[in-house]
Amino acid sequence: MSGEPPLPVRLTQALIAAESVTPARGAVFDVLEAMLTPLGFAVDRFVTGEAPEGPVENLLAVRGTGGPHFAFAGHVDVVPAGTGWSAGAFEPVVRGDLLHGRGAVDMKGAIGAFVAAASAPQDRGTLSLIITGDEEGPAIHGTRALIDRMRVRGLQPNMCLVGEPTSTHRLGDTIKVGRRGSVNIWIDVPGQAGHVAYPHLADNPIPRLVAALAEIDALVLDTGTDWFQPSNIEITDLAVGNPATNVIPPLASARLSIRFNDQHRGAELGERIAAIVRAHAPNAVVRPVVSGEAFLTEPGPLSTLVSDAIEARLGLRPELSTSGGTSDARFLSALCPVVEFGLLNATMHKADEAVAIPDLVALADIYRDIVARALA
Amino acid sequence: MSGEPPLPVRLTQALIAAESVTPARGAVFDVLEAMLTPLGFAVDRFVTGEAPEGPVENLLAVRGTGGPHFAFAGHVDVVPAGTGWSAGAFEPVVRGDLLHGRGAVDMKGAIGAFVAAASAPQDRGTLSLIITGDEEGPAIHGTRALIDRMRVRGLQPNMCLVGEPTSTHRLGDTIKVGRRGSVNIWIDVPGQAGHVAYPHLADNPIPRLVAALAEIDALVLDTGTDWFQPSNIEITDLAVGNPATNVIPPLASARLSIRFNDQHRGAELGERIAAIVRAHAPNAVVRPVVSGEAFLTEPGPLSTLVSDAIEARLGLRPELSTSGGTSDARFLSALCPVVEFGLLNATMHKADEAVAIPDLVALADIYRDIVARALA
Ligand SMILES: [Zn+2]
Ligand SMILES: [Zn+2]
Repeated sequence: MSGEPPLPVRLTQALIAAESVTPARGAVFDVLEAMLTPLGFAVDRFVTGEAPEGPVENLLAVRGTGGPHFAFAGHVDVVPAGTGWSAGAFEPVVRGDLLHGRGAVDMKGAIGAFVAAASAPQDRGTLSLIITGDEEGPAIHGTRALIDRMRVRGLQPNMCLVGEPTSTHRLGDTIKVGRRGSVNIWIDVPGQAGHVAYPHLADNPIPRLVAALAEIDALVLDTGTDWFQPSNIEITDLAVGNPATNVIPPLASARLSIRFNDQHRGAELGERIAAIVRAHAPNAVVRPVVSGEAFLTEPGPLSTLVSDAIEARLGLRPELSTSGGTSDARFLSALCPVVEFGLLNATMHKADEAVAIPDLVALADIYRDIVARALA
Repeated sequence: MSGEPPLPVRLTQALIAAESVTPARGAVFDVLEAMLTPLGFAVDRFVTGEAPEGPVENLLAVRGTGGPHFAFAGHVDVVPAGTGWSAGAFEPVVRGDLLHGRGAVDMKGAIGAFVAAASAPQDRGTLSLIITGDEEGPAIHGTRALIDRMRVRGLQPNMCLVGEPTSTHRLGDTIKVGRRGSVNIWIDVPGQAGHVAYPHLADNPIPRLVAALAEIDALVLDTGTDWFQPSNIEITDLAVGNPATNVIPPLASARLSIRFNDQHRGAELGERIAAIVRAHAPNAVVRPVVSGEAFLTEPGPLSTLVSDAIEARLGLRPELSTSGGTSDARFLSALCPVVEFGLLNATMHKADEAVAIPDLVALADIYRDIVARALA
């Protein structure tokens, strides 16, 4: 390749060079604002939250008025560089047809591609970018604050695309139409300490916990749905911390992680687990913390529109998936139908994170087509 | 009480004043040797073992020759003083009819009573004292080394009495004719770490461990025997140590403590547990450590002799028990029939450990009668 790199590559390089380990503030937003203002976007930046989860910077960019309203959502914060890089993680470098740098696929590449797409003329409707600096961190003051801001300003998209790296083997093979929910549950079973030679004077909490966990492990929450794999329970920790071989301990603890589909709500699962535990250990303390509820954008106009745009450019029809971890789409789904589509995720969060330049160019083309179809 | 205290009290006071937190060496043996030599005992002291379990001092005192041969066994080491004492733990003090001090009941009081008993004339046979400085510690170089020493010297008792504090509510209500064995078992279940969102790429070791422990907890090893309570399994520890809520851990561990009667051997129990664990987790590592095998001196001449002596002095017939923890009697039982009989155990290992002076005097009388009957 000779001459100046294509526009989406140059935009992505500029974003990578603005180091923005989560939570992102300042420079990377300056770079993004400097790209969007010349394209006619009204840029609204605000900082919210306090330590330890904040402060967090967010950016809302809007162009045009009235319907239809299409929104692109994403994050400019990145996970820390870590070790093992061939070159500086924040020095965007092209080797062959790969652009390397932290955030190349997750997800400064997608933002660069979307800004390039937005350089096309817009005849009608509203186009907005919902960009947070806190997706990789606690995500307390990020996209949720942006949604509040949009509600206050009366902005209501009809469709939203999140630029997370959803492709797995080749660009466009997978888009996400939903995500599972997540709840972590802490279980403490108190007992009565004692000496192993006199068990009748003690109450060992471990057999109670073990019996509860065996019953929990045998639970079938569901067998999956048309769009979701079966919900899954993992026991992620056990703790007693008893150094004495001849002592019956006073407390036994465990922790669960449940990834659940849209057949469940986090709080209901917490109550169900608590009931099982208390049947074995009436004095147990069961504390669920819901990280996010499951959501599903039923396949329909939005997923069809995105699939059509992918097929037109790449000749393949994406799989509509709901697998993997959580994303900010769980918050945006409260606003309007939402799907996620972006680059290959193979190198995300790893050393030498990289995007193929042809993918970046193709993604910009597809994003441009999606916007055109959505605002048509 | 006025005038000089009775002999067993004076001897016990002298032993308590020679501080001897486990492992005991030196002074307390000097005190004991100075008591025994004038009574005609040949005293053999030796030090054995290296750090961390040693060095340990032991004392073997023998008077007379030929049969019958009666042996008294015990320990001069004591557990640390700890806190909460009304006076110095190693300053033997009489308050009312109680003699206080670390070791008053476990078991310097019994040794004082036995030495007082041995001040009576001996017409025939052999009387020996088998005294270790390491019973409360690892017990690696204590009574076992004394038994080796006796074998080398060709000393073979017909009967042995261990002076551990076996009485529970009043002096003489309980003697021990056996003890349960003890085995601790460490279980490590390896798995394959991974992310909770992708459990098919991981192998969570916790459900395997939980299933094994549930099966182990449901095991009925036996329903007890004429002389033993049922064998008992306690799960004493669980450990995973996983701080990350979204991570499937690579290893889950547990520890068991089994107290078993003479229907079992420690190694067999280890193999039985290992088979259960491996059925759930083929790669598990199961490591049993046998602290002591169960033993039983079938009720017969020795227990009858001791019971008769108790009844003659106190008017009550002792219960023949096999309950409680392990003692050095597990080693001595390889040598000859052995029973344990001593003071009340209510204050052993506690602050203000104390013996009732009338009990100490009565115990010396009973020990004297036991020796007389055994050597008759
Ligand atoms: Zn991301
Ligand atoms: Zn003792």
